[in-house]
This record gives sequence, C-alpha cells and structure tokens, in this order.
Amino acid sequence: MSVLIVGSTALDSIKTPKKENPRLLGGSASHAAVAASFFSPVKLVGVVGKDFPKKYISLYQRHGIDLRGLQIEEGKTFHWSGEYEVNMNNRRTLLTELGVFEKFTPHLPAEYKSSPFVLLANIAPALQHHVLDQMNKPRFVVADTMDLWLNIAKEDLLRLLPRVDGFVLNDSEAHQLTECDNVFGALKKIHKLGPRFVIIKKGSHGSILSSPSGHFICPAYPLANVCDPTGAGDSFVGGMMGYLATARGSIEANIRKAMIYGSVTASFCCEGFGLKKTTTIKRKDIDRRVKELQQFTRF
Amino acid sequence: MSVLIVGSTALDSIKTPKKENPRLLGGSASHAAVAASFFSPVKLVGVVGKDFPKKYISLYQRHGIDLRGLQIEEGKTFHWSGEYEVNMNNRRTLLTELGVFEKFTPHLPAEYKSSPFVLLANIAPALQHHVLDQMNKPRFVVADTMDLWLNIAKEDLLRLLPRVDGFVLNDSEAHQLTECDNVFGALKKIHKLGPRFVIIKKGSHGSILSSPSGHFICPAYPLANVCDPTGAGDSFVGGMMGYLATARGSIEANIRKAMIYGSVTASFCCEGFGLKKTTTIKRKDIDRRVKELQQFTRF
Repeated sequence: MSVLIVGSTALDSIKTPKKENPRLLGGSASHAAVAASFFSPVKLVGVVGKDFPKKYISLYQRHGIDLRGLQIEEGKTFHWSGEYEVNMNNRRTLLTELGVFEKFTPHLPAEYKSSPFVLLANIAPALQHHVLDQMNKPRFVVADTMDLWLNIAKEDLLRLLPRVDGFVLNDSEAHQLTECDNVFGALKKIHKLGPRFVIIKKGSHGSILSSPSGHFICPAYPLANVCDPTGAGDSFVGGMMGYLATARGSIEANIRKAMIYGSVTASFCCEGFGLKKTTTIKRKDIDRRVKELQQFTRF
Repeated sequence: MSVLIVGSTALDSIKTPKKENPRLLGGSASHAAVAASFFSPVKLVGVVGKDFPKKYISLYQRHGIDLRGLQIEEGKTFHWSGEYEVNMNNRRTLLTELGVFEKFTPHLPAEYKSSPFVLLANIAPALQHHVLDQMNKPRFVVADTMDLWLNIAKEDLLRLLPRVDGFVLNDSEAHQLTECDNVFGALKKIHKLGPRFVIIKKGSHGSILSSPSGHFICPAYPLANVCDPTGAGDSFVGGMMGYLATARGSIEANIRKAMIYGSVTASFCCEGFGLKKTTTIKRKDIDRRVKELQQFTRF
C-alpha cells in the first residue's frame, strides 16, 4: 500500500563543526519520502519555487516518488540554514526564508485522497489539518511536529492530536508540551491529548513507543561517526510509515519492527550531509543493519 | 560463587529538588554490595568510623554480606553531600568529608583472596591496585571509576586498565578519558587501554557494552518517577557482578543478561533515597521487571 507524505520540501544549508553545505535537498517531506520509498510507494505533497533544481526532481523520481502533489510555484523555494554544536545533538537555526512555502496550501490530487497511510511530516498544524480534511478515511495517520509549532500554533496542534492515530516528537518537545521532564511521564500525558500511539525520539539514544499494548524501547543503530543528523527524525518516521504500509497484519503487530526499520534508515541519514548517504543505499543495506541491531539487543 | 566488592562505605546527605535526606547509608561499595546480594554471596571491603550507625551494620547483615573485610576505625565515617538538578541527571557535590576514608588501606582477610569475581567499585585507583595485588588469580575483575580520578589520578587509572577484564564508566567520563564525544568512538579507544569488556553508562538512556563478541545496547527500565539516582550506577554494576557470579557458562554468554539484571536493580535504587527502596525488594521483584524489559525490547 502507498504512503501519502505531506511536509516541507526545502533547500537546506547545513553547517557543522566540520563542514558547510549550501542548498542541499532537505525538508521534512523530502527526508521522510526518500526513507519511506525503500519500503513502499510514496505520494508526495509539498511546494517548491521555480528555482528548485531539476536534479532534485530527478532524485525524487529515482526513488519512485509520485510528484503529482508537488506544487511548483512562482518564487523561491523554502530555504533553511542551521548549525550543529560540537556534540551534534543541539541544532541552532541561522536563517529561515519561507519563499513559496509562506502561502502553501496543500491540494491533494484526487488519486491521493484514499491513501491508507498518511504521514503529516513536520509542517504547520493548520496545514496538517487541511490535508486530513481532504482525506477519505485513511487507515493510519501519524503526525510529526517541531518546537516552533508548540511556540506559535499550540492550539492548532492540540486540536490535531485527537485526529491522528500516532504522534511523534522529540524529548525536548515532549518536555515543552507536557511540562514533564521524564519521558515516561510525558508519554502518559500525551496519550490523554488523543493519539493511541506516541513516540518520543531521543536522537542517538533511540526512541520510545507507548501504545495500547505497552512500551517499546527502540534502539538507535550504533554510529561511531555522525556527519549530519539533519533529517534523521524525518527519516525515522518516514521509514517507519513505509514499512508499516507494506506489512501484513495489524499496526500493533508491526509497529515495533517498523520503528527498527525507521531507526536504521535514520542511521544512514546521519552518515552524510542532507540526503547524500541515504540516496546511495539499497534496501539490502537497511536489512543488514536491522539484523545487526537484532544482534546488538538480544539477551 | 561469591563476589568481592571494594569501594566506599559512606554516609550520604542527598538533596534533590523535592527533598533533603541526611546521613543515609551510601558509598559505591554499599550500593554495589546490596545489589549483588540478590544474586550471590558478597564479601565487602571498606572502612567506616566509630560513628557508623549500628542499623547500617544490621542492614548489611540482613543482605547476608560478609563484613570481615569492613574495617571500623577511630574517627568519622566518610560523609558525602550532593545535590541533583531538576532533570535528575546532573549531580553537584556540596561537601566531602573523608574522615577515616582518608587513610584507608584495604586489607583483605585470607578468606577473601581467592574470590573468583572482584568488583573494584568507585574508589581511588591506587586502592583498586592494592586490592588486586592481594588477590589470587580472580576469574573476572571489573573496575568502576568517577570523574574525580580522571582529574587527580589518571596515571594510576591508566595503569589499572590493563589489569582488569571489565571497565565501567559513564558517558561524560568516557568523553573526558578519550576526548571523543561519541559513545561508540569512545568504546573503541577504551579497549585499546586494556579491558576486553567496556561498558558506558548513560543514566536513563541505559548502557552500552562493547565486548569481544560485539556491542550490546542495554535498556534502562522505564521509570515515570525518579526519586534519587544516587548509587544507581553502583547498583547496576553490583547487580551485574552478582548475576555473573551465579551464572553457568562463559562471561561472554552471560554478560548481557547480567547487565539487564543490573539495570533493573538500578531502577529500584532510583525509586527511593539512598538504599531505601532497594532494601525493600526481593529477587522476585527484580525477575518481574526483567520479564517486563524483555517485553519492552522484543521486535
């Protein structure tokens, strides 16, 4: 089955202690779509400007991503610039030029409206609502978010949560949302806001799922060198949704393995700037790391 | 088989955002010994002053801990006072009164010298050396440490590492020792200093083992409320050594499960001030949480 992914499609200029990288393909939807594409067909919804490089359109196409929902508008593509600190865990935004993203309204092509799996990747909650308004009873909807929306659109986000099956956020966002500095305490509080499946991402420490059948402690794949973690969270949730869309059986029966696949896909993302590494791998590379992760966690 | 444990035996005054607790039983050896006692007989080596409360001697005895190696000297028991920050992950020392600990030289009773399992809990590396000098070919020796010894006794510590089978330290200490801010990079560097088994503790994020047969990602037991993490690391390594001492087969075959048992024992430690919670539990409580952790990690 296919996954519909809506989010930002952007150009990212990423500075780390080691290197600068101007105008890489980025954005939550780009990372999530490429990650999901290893597992299932992807339908992308986003917006870019006329300046969007053709090579990035080709990149999406090489991953079999359906681009009928990608709007190409007069103006400039969303440009984000950020810098990582030495420990690669803390990110600081240097610049945000919204461009055509400022007036983005996601219009779903007719063929998209009955996609069973929907990933509302990081984007304004109002736009996440707007996508759901156009959908025809999807089977499983997951939303991601970021601290910005907790700061400027918290009401929209709180109205969204009862409309989604799963909600994904990182540990500092969970703390900000719940005022609870303990991950397991925060999970309880977030369930009360609506979603049955809540996942808190902890960067290199992995992630934690809280679901109707209990907790799952999902490890991160061990990396001795992290090049650039930008998009790792989007890759995680994209890979997870891609895997879920192809798996037989209930969501509950598959979500743990789906998180492991997402976690491994995210590990490749961290090994190159932007999507540079992720776009060089094959499904078999992911499968190999999943097997390793099984070795690393059995007891 | 029995575990010999040497380390500090202290009175801890622990301040957290929620409560103050004067003169609890503390010290690395106390926490490790109580944790190990759920699994195997423990021989304690330490020093206390004449002021050491009789109720704490009784506490050790209730856990079947062999106290022939506990020296009771004229003077005051080592007193440590510390404060935790709001997130309960960062600790700040307020006061250290060494008392009789200042001139402590561990003397091993004859019956202790052929203990097969030796835990050199956190204590000055020179004293850890002194214990090893008295041992008769132990089967498996593990050393723990703290940032203080990296600051003031690094040479002693570096000379110790080739003498031990296993070395346990937390992530910030690993960073300090190796100048590598990535856990998996640090593990590689620490192996080169001598130990075959290296474990980096990450507090609520669990711990990572690097061993001849690869990595093990050991989860922490999920706690929605942490009361006081003092001694959790000592409980972890104590529980691990206690489990190893009773397990049949090779260290390699048992160390993962031993870490899980250590991790669970440490979770109880975090739920009360000092040893308050740990001293109320039974082995069956530990076994129950180990089963839960299996549920929380299978995929």
